[in-house]
Amino acid sequence: MTTITAVEVIDVRFPTSLSADGSDAMNKDGDYSAAYVILRTDDSALSGYGFTFTIGRGNDICVLAAEQRALPLIGRDADAVLDDLGATYRDLKTDSQLRWLGPEKGVEHLAMAAVMNALWDMAARRAGKPLWRLLADMTPEQLVDIADLKYLSDALTREEAIALLEELEPTRSERIAELERDGYPCYTTSAGWLGYSDEKMRRLLREAVDQGYKHVKLKVGANLEEDIRRCRIAREEIGPDAHLMIDANQVWDVPQAIDWVGALSEFNPLWIEEPTSPDDILGHAAIRRAVAPIGVATGEHGMNRVLFKQMFQAEAIDFCQLDSARLASINEILAVYLLAKKFGVPVCPHAGGVGLCELVQHLSIFDYVAVSGSLENRVTEFVDHLHEHFVDPCIVENGAYRVPTAPGYSAEMFEESLREYAFPGGAYWTGASLVQARIA
Amino acid sequence: MTTITAVEVIDVRFPTSLSADGSDAMNKDGDYSAAYVILRTDDSALSGYGFTFTIGRGNDICVLAAEQRALPLIGRDADAVLDDLGATYRDLKTDSQLRWLGPEKGVEHLAMAAVMNALWDMAARRAGKPLWRLLADMTPEQLVDIADLKYLSDALTREEAIALLEELEPTRSERIAELERDGYPCYTTSAGWLGYSDEKMRRLLREAVDQGYKHVKLKVGANLEEDIRRCRIAREEIGPDAHLMIDANQVWDVPQAIDWVGALSEFNPLWIEEPTSPDDILGHAAIRRAVAPIGVATGEHGMNRVLFKQMFQAEAIDFCQLDSARLASINEILAVYLLAKKFGVPVCPHAGGVGLCELVQHLSIFDYVAVSGSLENRVTEFVDHLHEHFVDPCIVENGAYRVPTAPGYSAEMFEESLREYAFPGGAYWTGASLVQARIA
Repeated sequence: MTTITAVEVIDVRFPTSLSADGSDAMNKDGDYSAAYVILRTDDSALSGYGFTFTIGRGNDICVLAAEQRALPLIGRDADAVLDDLGATYRDLKTDSQLRWLGPEKGVEHLAMAAVMNALWDMAARRAGKPLWRLLADMTPEQLVDIADLKYLSDALTREEAIALLEELEPTRSERIAELERDGYPCYTTSAGWLGYSDEKMRRLLREAVDQGYKHVKLKVGANLEEDIRRCRIAREEIGPDAHLMIDANQVWDVPQAIDWVGALSEFNPLWIEEPTSPDDILGHAAIRRAVAPIGVATGEHGMNRVLFKQMFQAEAIDFCQLDSARLASINEILAVYLLAKKFGVPVCPHAGGVGLCELVQHLSIFDYVAVSGSLENRVTEFVDHLHEHFVDPCIVENGAYRVPTAPGYSAEMFEESLREYAFPGGAYWTGASLVQARIA
Repeated sequence: MTTITAVEVIDVRFPTSLSADGSDAMNKDGDYSAAYVILRTDDSALSGYGFTFTIGRGNDICVLAAEQRALPLIGRDADAVLDDLGATYRDLKTDSQLRWLGPEKGVEHLAMAAVMNALWDMAARRAGKPLWRLLADMTPEQLVDIADLKYLSDALTREEAIALLEELEPTRSERIAELERDGYPCYTTSAGWLGYSDEKMRRLLREAVDQGYKHVKLKVGANLEEDIRRCRIAREEIGPDAHLMIDANQVWDVPQAIDWVGALSEFNPLWIEEPTSPDDILGHAAIRRAVAPIGVATGEHGMNRVLFKQMFQAEAIDFCQLDSARLASINEILAVYLLAKKFGVPVCPHAGGVGLCELVQHLSIFDYVAVSGSLENRVTEFVDHLHEHFVDPCIVENGAYRVPTAPGYSAEMFEESLREYAFPGGAYWTGASLVQARIA
C-alpha cells in the first residue's frame, strides 16, 4: 500500500511587475505567483504537483488555505484516493465549515484548485500518462462520475452528459492523431500588455506574425485615445485578415463597455474580453447584444460552474475562457466543458500567469478529443513567460501547442526555481542571488 | 492629530456544534466564529471594533486576510481616514493583487467586511452616535458618495440614487420617533434548527409565540417526511395566521427545489430561503416563478452587490437577505439597499451567528428611516445566541429590536469573552476553564 504522507505548500513569487509583463488596465503591477502544492507519498517515485495562480500579495493566504484543505489526505491510501477522484473531490469540498468561506469561490476555491490539481497530476503520473490521455482513456460514464454536476441539473442532466460524450467516443483516436500531427491552435498575448511601449509592441507583433500566429490580443480600457492608436498599430502589423482580440480586464460598467467597444469596432476585433465584472451574467448578455458581431469573452475570473451555467443559459458569451487554477480542477472544469458543448459555446481557456499554459494544453486537447470534437472558433491562450521554471514545459510551434507526452499534468517546477523565488525567504527576494552574482 | 497605530485580529470560536445550535441541512456542525478586528489609535478613548462571521475552520485564514487588508491603515491620520470612508474604502479595495483573489468575494471580501466594519464602528464612536444615527444624519449626496456604485450603473445611476434618498429626507425624523417607540420588527430562528428534537422545537415555538413573534423559521431540506412532520408541528403551535418561513440552506438543485417546496406548500410558508446555490440568479428566478405565491428569499451568502443587482434585474427574489459581515460593510450594503428600493424588493437582513443581530439592527433602522420608508413585508432575523459576549447587545422586546443608543456599531466584545474563546489558545479551547472550575 502506498500512503500519502505529507503536503508541502510553497509561496512562489516572480517579480514580473519590474518589466510590466502582464500589465493591464486593472492589474498594473502584478508579481506572478503560485501557491504551489507538493503531495508526497511513502513511494519516493510517486508525488503530485499542482498550484493555483495569483499576482502577489495574498498568495500566502492561499498557501495557508491549501495546507488546510489538503490535511484530510494525509495518511490515506494513495490508490483509494486516486482510484475515485470524484469521491475524493466530493469529500474535500463538503467540509461545511470551509464551505462557508465561499461557498466555492475566492481563496478557498483557489486552494481547492491547487490541491485537486496536485491530485490529478499524481493520478496521471501513477498511470504513466499525460493527463489529457488519462482522461481520454476513460469511458463516458467514468468521466461523468468525476464531473461535479451539483446545481447544474436544470441545464444538463447526467444522462445528457453521458450521451454527449458517447457521440464522440468512437472517433477519439482520429482526433488524437490529428493533434499529434498539427498541435492545438493558440494565440499570443505576449505583445499586447498595456505597460509596453509602442516600439516594443510593434516588434513583438511582428515576431508573432512571423512565428505563425493568426490571433493576437491587446489590453485596452485605460485610455480610449491610446487604445485607438494601439489597435491601429496592431492592424498595421498583423494585416486585415489575422484576428485581433481586445481585453479590458473588468474596468468598465455595462453602458461604458458598450460605448468603448463601439469606438474600437473599426478595428474589427474578434472579441472583447472581460468587459465588466466577471460576476455580471446579465451585464455580459446586455453587452453581447449591443456589440454584435464583435464577440464577448470572459471566464478567467469565472468563479465556479454555477456562474458558467448561467453565462450559457443567458446567452451572455461567445467564448468561454475558463481558468485551470480558479475552477476546482478537472472535476469542475469537466462540468463546464460539458455545459459548453450542450450550449454550443467554444471554450478558449485563459492561460499565461505561472504555469497556466502548461495546464490548459491538456484541457484543450482533451476537449477536442472527447467533448467538443471541434476546432472551430477555438484558440487557447499562450503567453511566453516563466516556462523555464517547469520540468515539462509546454512547447508551441507554428502557433500551436504540441501534444504533451510526459506523465502528469505538466505542473512540476524545478527545485532550484522554488529555492530562488520562494517568498519571502528565497534567494531572489532576500537578495542572496545578487550577492552571489557579485561574488562570481 | 489622532493616528491609527495598530490592528489586532483575533480568532474567536464558540463551541456551538456541541448543542446543534445553528444546525441545518448544509451546515450540521458549525462552531460559530468571528475574525474579530480591533483598530487602535494613539487616543486611548478611540478604537474601532468589527468582525466577519464564519462557522469554524478557516476562521484563521480570515484573520490573516484581515490583518493584511488593514495594514495600509496603520500610521494614517484617523480623522482623514474617517472623514471620507468612501475614499478609504476605495483605497483598500483597489489593491489589485488582493483583488485577484476574489474579486470581491470569498475570504478576501469577508476580510474587507471585517476591517470596514471596524472603521464604521470607529467613525460612529468618534461622532458619539450609534451607527444608524450617524448614517441617518447624512445628506443624500453624502450617502451616495459612500455607496459603492461600481458595476451598477446599468441598474442605478448616481442621480437616481440621490433622488431616491431625497424623497424620504424630509420625513426621516417621524420614522425615527416611530421606531424609538415601537422598535423594528423581527422574527426568530431559535426554534427551528434541524438538530433539535420535536419536543425542544415545540417548546421553543410556544415560547416564541408567547414572546410576541408573528414570524418563525424552520430549517428544512434534509428529509421530506421529517420536514412535513416538523412543519405540521409548527403550524399546530403558531396557528394559521402567524408566518412560517422555511430555509433549505442551499441543498437543492433547481428542479428538486421546485418539487420539495411544492410538497410543503400546504403549510403556507411565507418564503423558501436559500433553495439552491446562492450564486444561481437564473435558478432562483425559475424557482420563484414555479412556487409562487410562496416567496423566494436569499442573500446570506450573496457575495457582493453585483450578485444582488442581478437578483433584482432577473426578478429572482421576493426578500433580500443581505449579510452585514459578508458584504463589504456600509459602503456596499448601502448600494444594495438603494438597488432594493429602486426594484421594490424588501430587505430582511440575515442575522444570528456571532454578533450579526448587533450589526443588522442598525441597518434595518437606517433603511426604514432613510431608504425604504416602509415596514411592509420587512422583518429582520433574530437568533437568541451569544449576545452575552457583547458590550452593547441588541435588545428584543415584543418581537422587535429596540433602537440602539450607545455610540458605535454595537460590535465590541468583552475582553473576557475574547480571552475565553480565542482559538486555539483561549481558556475554553485549552481546557483551562475546566481546570479552574474544578479548583473552584
